[in-house]
Amino acid sequence: MDTERSPLACPFPDAPKIAGVLPRVARAGYKDWGRCDLTYVELAEGTSVAGVFTNNVCCSSEVELGREQVLLGRTRALVVNAGNSNAFTGYRGREAVEAIMGQVATHLGCEPSDVFVSSTGVIGVPLPKDKAQAGLEAAFAAAECTWEDAARTIGTTDTFAKGAVATAMVGGTKVTLVGIVKGSGMIAPDMATMLGYVFTDAAVEPAYLQACLSAASEATFNCITVDGDTSTSDTVLAFATGKADNTPLASSGDPGADAFAAALHDVCRQLSHLVVRDGEGAQKFIEIAVSGAVDDASARGIGLAVANSPLVKTAIAGEDANWGRVVMAVGKAGEPADRDRLSIGFGGIWAARNGLPLADYDEGPVTAHLKGREVTVEIDLGLGDGRATVWTCDLTHGYISINADYRS
Amino acid sequence: MDTERSPLACPFPDAPKIAGVLPRVARAGYKDWGRCDLTYVELAEGTSVAGVFTNNVCCSSEVELGREQVLLGRTRALVVNAGNSNAFTGYRGREAVEAIMGQVATHLGCEPSDVFVSSTGVIGVPLPKDKAQAGLEAAFAAAECTWEDAARTIGTTDTFAKGAVATAMVGGTKVTLVGIVKGSGMIAPDMATMLGYVFTDAAVEPAYLQACLSAASEATFNCITVDGDTSTSDTVLAFATGKADNTPLASSGDPGADAFAAALHDVCRQLSHLVVRDGEGAQKFIEIAVSGAVDDASARGIGLAVANSPLVKTAIAGEDANWGRVVMAVGKAGEPADRDRLSIGFGGIWAARNGLPLADYDEGPVTAHLKGREVTVEIDLGLGDGRATVWTCDLTHGYISINADYRS
Repeated sequence: MDTERSPLACPFPDAPKIAGVLPRVARAGYKDWGRCDLTYVELAEGTSVAGVFTNNVCCSSEVELGREQVLLGRTRALVVNAGNSNAFTGYRGREAVEAIMGQVATHLGCEPSDVFVSSTGVIGVPLPKDKAQAGLEAAFAAAECTWEDAARTIGTTDTFAKGAVATAMVGGTKVTLVGIVKGSGMIAPDMATMLGYVFTDAAVEPAYLQACLSAASEATFNCITVDGDTSTSDTVLAFATGKADNTPLASSGDPGADAFAAALHDVCRQLSHLVVRDGEGAQKFIEIAVSGAVDDASARGIGLAVANSPLVKTAIAGEDANWGRVVMAVGKAGEPADRDRLSIGFGGIWAARNGLPLADYDEGPVTAHLKGREVTVEIDLGLGDGRATVWTCDLTHGYISINADYRS
Repeated sequence: MDTERSPLACPFPDAPKIAGVLPRVARAGYKDWGRCDLTYVELAEGTSVAGVFTNNVCCSSEVELGREQVLLGRTRALVVNAGNSNAFTGYRGREAVEAIMGQVATHLGCEPSDVFVSSTGVIGVPLPKDKAQAGLEAAFAAAECTWEDAARTIGTTDTFAKGAVATAMVGGTKVTLVGIVKGSGMIAPDMATMLGYVFTDAAVEPAYLQACLSAASEATFNCITVDGDTSTSDTVLAFATGKADNTPLASSGDPGADAFAAALHDVCRQLSHLVVRDGEGAQKFIEIAVSGAVDDASARGIGLAVANSPLVKTAIAGEDANWGRVVMAVGKAGEPADRDRLSIGFGGIWAARNGLPLADYDEGPVTAHLKGREVTVEIDLGLGDGRATVWTCDLTHGYISINADYRS
């Protein structure tokens, strides 16, 4: 992490311990760096798990295995390797993951399938089994770490540690959620080089936990984009230990289920925004609000086309209220749009309405808005009730510097 | 055009006059610049026309009208305005185009629908009718210009004038084709801020000319991308005056029809590559050859996903043989791919085969290849016989500088 801290960085929150969750970090030495790069989290027996994974068809063994493991519904541990994604490494990569799962299973006296593994970093180099093994032994012996330590240890090109906290009242019992996430480049729906983990002491049945996580991810992690590129390893997992001793949540009709779902959504929203705030070279956090589309999915497609447009992202980097580029991006989205009903605004001020520049449009306040760190773009299609909000960052010289110089 | 000439620029070819085609240029003054910005081309009576247009749903009035006009099959004139795209300007933009068509029709004694108009430049500002009118009058009185003058006059952010020439023998008669094109940014399938025109003295029936142009565009203009952004104005038109007096070509079975189609394809290929060579900030010309896909369309989709990946484009800018990023881009294309059958190479040298890095892979020659101006990326899916080749350029600081500073 020799790149400068993002100007959009947020301080790590005051994150409490979660009953039934024991995080530790160690040095496996996956790269030649003087930092911890292996995170090991022990989870109480009976912990529920849910997950969402990358759609990239060239996914890693970790993702292949993880997709199967979430179907089991329960888990005992999580291992995260930083510095080597173990993707595109064939059977040797798979062996390395299975060795880690076996070693933790022996240590805890559980099944290998109870152990989730994630890896992030360079593609194409098998994860060195000996380093993983030694790192794990060190982690087993280590003291509990803080959430900030864990967040820092799962990071790679991240310029700041990212965490989020929320609470909810579930049937008279207070439950707490803590999330950590890593990711800065190669971020796009669906979920690119991003690893996110949410831990809660709530008692939640696996199926309902999965329903909550899927819904939350759809509107948060899958609505962010940095460069439109999608990683082979992206993963978001939610773990519920049940140590808060609330009546277990099994469906949306249960008392407190809505509150829990809202808290999980809140943590996912915070985490996803932190990833955008650490977008490679990001100088501005951009929110794109689309309304008036034929439906919500169409609105999201349009929002993402705008968010992924290099010409829109460079215009905002240049603090240029170039709504014409937004029009272009809307038009190429492949979604229903009518040029003569389209309205575009920045910072809540319309620049064009119903297909025409506003006669009294004053660029002054818009330009002032664009000079800030937080920029909003409003797009109204004028066709229906479809809405979506997506988030991205601007495209700057910093992105080029980081990615044209990054070496395996 | 105050940006530096692209290091990938090619000299303008020795382009002959085409019988029945009379190009002229003039100063309309659409922007405050000391250059010609209106191109007027008179075409002999009976000239056949064919066209392909942007798929951007927010297209300009010029494109809307042009789509209808090509159905008529014959034309008498072309007007190209540079500096103002007239897109997203509502009824006032439409009026400006119709005024130009009417003025030329009066001058030539033809129908307004016989006059094609294209405009390129800033979006959202109606084309000033008075400037267009005065510019046209000046063009009517001007002397014939060279093809290089015409190519320079249709340009906007282009850093060099772009032209191509080809000949073919059609039933014992030599026919000649000259093409000019403009475009440097906002280039993507299908055809973004790109205006291309091919003129030939061959006699070709409109329907066959359209068939040839559509096929050629599919494999050339629609296989290039600079930034994945698609303009609202893109247009390629082909004009055949018939002055070579060959027996008119009406179908692919006619003698010489294949030779003509090949020559048109050749001109389109040359022109499309010139656009990539003027990609904003381009330092390297990249050819991506995809084989082994399930079909040709799938191969093209994969090639374009790789060509549009900022991470691949920055890696090549950095002369980094980062085949892992190519894997990632293949995986996100949404096309059939099998990680364990995938092979990736650079400059004809495989870096990974069948899903695994090559044990004896020597990065030395690959790195030497990447240091050149012309880079090839080979992708073999190992699934079927589908093939495609797409072309793009690298993503550099130059792109950011041009697009973050460009102002309307």
